[in-house]
Amino acid sequence: MRRLTFRYPNGKRYTKSATPQKMGKANRGMSLEEDINQSIIHYRNTERAIIHKKPTPVQIVNVDYPKRSRAKITEAYFRQASTTDYNGVYKGRYVDFEAKETHQVQSFPLKNLHEHQITHMQEIDAHGGFGFLILRFARSQETFVIKTSDFLHLKASTERKSVQKTHIETYGVKLANTTLPPVDFLPAVDLLFQ
Amino acid sequence: MRRLTFRYPNGKRYTKSATPQKMGKANRGMSLEEDINQSIIHYRNTERAIIHKKPTPVQIVNVDYPKRSRAKITEAYFRQASTTDYNGVYKGRYVDFEAKETHQVQSFPLKNLHEHQITHMQEIDAHGGFGFLILRFARSQETFVIKTSDFLHLKASTERKSVQKTHIETYGVKLANTTLPPVDFLPAVDLLFQ
Repeated sequence: MRRLTFRYPNGKRYTKSATPQKMGKANRGMSLEEDINQSIIHYRNTERAIIHKKPTPVQIVNVDYPKRSRAKITEAYFRQASTTDYNGVYKGRYVDFEAKETHQVQSFPLKNLHEHQITHMQEIDAHGGFGFLILRFARSQETFVIKTSDFLHLKASTERKSVQKTHIETYGVKLANTTLPPVDFLPAVDLLFQ
Repeated sequence: MRRLTFRYPNGKRYTKSATPQKMGKANRGMSLEEDINQSIIHYRNTERAIIHKKPTPVQIVNVDYPKRSRAKITEAYFRQASTTDYNGVYKGRYVDFEAKETHQVQSFPLKNLHEHQITHMQEIDAHGGFGFLILRFARSQETFVIKTSDFLHLKASTERKSVQKTHIETYGVKLANTTLPPVDFLPAVDLLFQ
């Protein structure tokens, strides 16, 4: 057993025990969010696309303004996001996506997408934006890109509270295992929205 | 003299004394931000464009998780924004803008745009997005839309720490006084990026 230590951009330490012989690229314990954040930095540096993660929406209730010191927020609450997490520009077009990870094996649960986000996705679609989801099955470390319109169609056509993995495989594009960027989703966007 | 009281979305109270006979639509004391927020809601409701204001970026240091109550952020700090405030989709294209107001009469000061935002604007421009500024001269209640590329060109060609109003009049589009939406900037975007 070996202990690996990562630091997230927010400074939080993430420690995960990993068995060395099992460690491929896919098993480094990096979250999908971390992988996507690295990927959008890479796309920006290589001038492929400009995509940013939106800040966490916070309702600020109280702020202290100490003398000779910066303002300190002393009371605030998390608000529910009314949009997806990521958006930006790719070849002049508007791109907009949400990233979700599951530990289930056969299907993707829908409970993580709330109504506001689904409405937002439908609006982006209606206005000609490139709206999609990046879905990762954490156990098999498989990552898919699927158009929001296809995903919402699959969601609407089932009684279940999840979308079957086989359907995601049919409508989505499975990403190759790459290192830089760790989630190379732009070729899938080209393919899905051509 | 009459006292009018408004509340901004952040809950801060804004009080402005106004002489009733001088009160046209333009003098209601609404901030540019408030006007733009109303306008993007109107555009969304009338299915013209989907534009959102980004949440204020906050660095969260400490969170309390009380029993039977929602999480409370007890220590956080404002971070400098690395992008502009507004972005979204219009006719499939990526739109991105910043809104600024000045009380100066003859020129627009540049100090309110920081380096990160200028870099972001240049990147949006390079990737074919529709990048622009909405500038308001508060005293005359004149509002202009100007392409970021033109504004940055004007900025680069002067030794001053401000851009002359006459130049903004030449390169920008002056908005008509409208009520709904209060800042009708999409026709100017059509004109500037045609």
